[in-house]
Amino acid sequence: MLNLPQLKNQQLWLCALTHRSYVNEHLEIKEHNERLEFLGDAVLAFVAGEFLYQRYPHLSEAQLSRLRARLVDETQLAKFAVQLGIGQLMRLGKGAIKDGGRENPALLSDTFEAIIGAYFLDAGIDAVREFVRPLFQSVADILMVAQSEILTSEKLLDPKNRFQQWTLANFTQNPEYVIIEESGPDHAKEFTAQVKVQGIVYGIGRGRRKQEATKTAAEAALKKIGLF
Amino acid sequence: MLNLPQLKNQQLWLCALTHRSYVNEHLEIKEHNERLEFLGDAVLAFVAGEFLYQRYPHLSEAQLSRLRARLVDETQLAKFAVQLGIGQLMRLGKGAIKDGGRENPALLSDTFEAIIGAYFLDAGIDAVREFVRPLFQSVADILMVAQSEILTSEKLLDPKNRFQQWTLANFTQNPEYVIIEESGPDHAKEFTAQVKVQGIVYGIGRGRRKQEATKTAAEAALKKIGLF
Repeated sequence: MLNLPQLKNQQLWLCALTHRSYVNEHLEIKEHNERLEFLGDAVLAFVAGEFLYQRYPHLSEAQLSRLRARLVDETQLAKFAVQLGIGQLMRLGKGAIKDGGRENPALLSDTFEAIIGAYFLDAGIDAVREFVRPLFQSVADILMVAQSEILTSEKLLDPKNRFQQWTLANFTQNPEYVIIEESGPDHAKEFTAQVKVQGIVYGIGRGRRKQEATKTAAEAALKKIGLF
Repeated sequence: MLNLPQLKNQQLWLCALTHRSYVNEHLEIKEHNERLEFLGDAVLAFVAGEFLYQRYPHLSEAQLSRLRARLVDETQLAKFAVQLGIGQLMRLGKGAIKDGGRENPALLSDTFEAIIGAYFLDAGIDAVREFVRPLFQSVADILMVAQSEILTSEKLLDPKNRFQQWTLANFTQNPEYVIIEESGPDHAKEFTAQVKVQGIVYGIGRGRRKQEATKTAAEAALKKIGLF
């Protein structure tokens, strides 16, 4: 099990662990952890962004954004919280405990964020960075590979991509898509697209949008050459 | 006009100003500002969150989140960019300039983020904080007041809120809502709600959802007492 940070300010630490449902049942306690959660969310967005920017110098902005979203989403933060044993430390109301609150991903993730917010107030951004980086390092590469595999398989399945691969391999040319017809009223248009290679029509397709029509044309072309 | 930060690293500065459309037209230039934009977005999320957390100790997490979304959205960042004269500095392709790119909020906002990312790499988080805080200070209170006015007027218009105000004023009691009937199949349920004060029914309402049914019941109650 990984270690939680040690805060100098014990009150702040307790506040980070305190869920709203606990405050409702304990009149002497005034503050729950939601504001710290807000702060921790902002701190994590930054540390995650900085970490990914440095670790993956060749990824595009879009790839980095997708990766950051995964690295600090509820699912992932709840996993970190479990690794750190946060479930047993959360101060929850009796009802929340009965409803399985200690294993609830939303509560675990929120409390993790609140702890990050509290640690930031207690020890500053460098301390948070040092605490969080090993967690990020333990999953970033796995998330990145998983993501590129999804993207690759999507690309492989896309008929326009597949037909392009074939034309490049056979003609060292890209296929050419042309919208040859538009029909119907504005709210129910239909487009007809043609895909040509070296001036020869390989497929025709129809669709409600231009993109759909060209995709259907590519499918027709793949059928014609026996690849669909 | 406010002053832009001075970067030690001039190459980084130029990169922050360079839009993808400029790179497409200048083969000798390899890098556009999109990765810096990703980094700047993360830095801004953090500095804005920290700023709001400190400035408004009495706002809830939900209020802070809404405010942060407004403080660093495209509209607001584009306004900062205009104040800083970024429009004329952006390195855009000819087509983008012709299409009004120098006044385009999306381009202005993206470039502002890229400058923040570059300045962070050049001078660190404290320097960014010092640069950005006066900008945030200049608009935060206005955004907060605007937001609370919207929320107040929404609350005033909501029939359940209005009926509650009346019952509190006249009986120092909250109205009580009860779902008295559920009918129809799962995909087309209808709910019937009753609203009572001190055991007396003031209104009945129906709706596809419980919330809708209680709202309709509150409207009926307001009609009964002549406030709708």
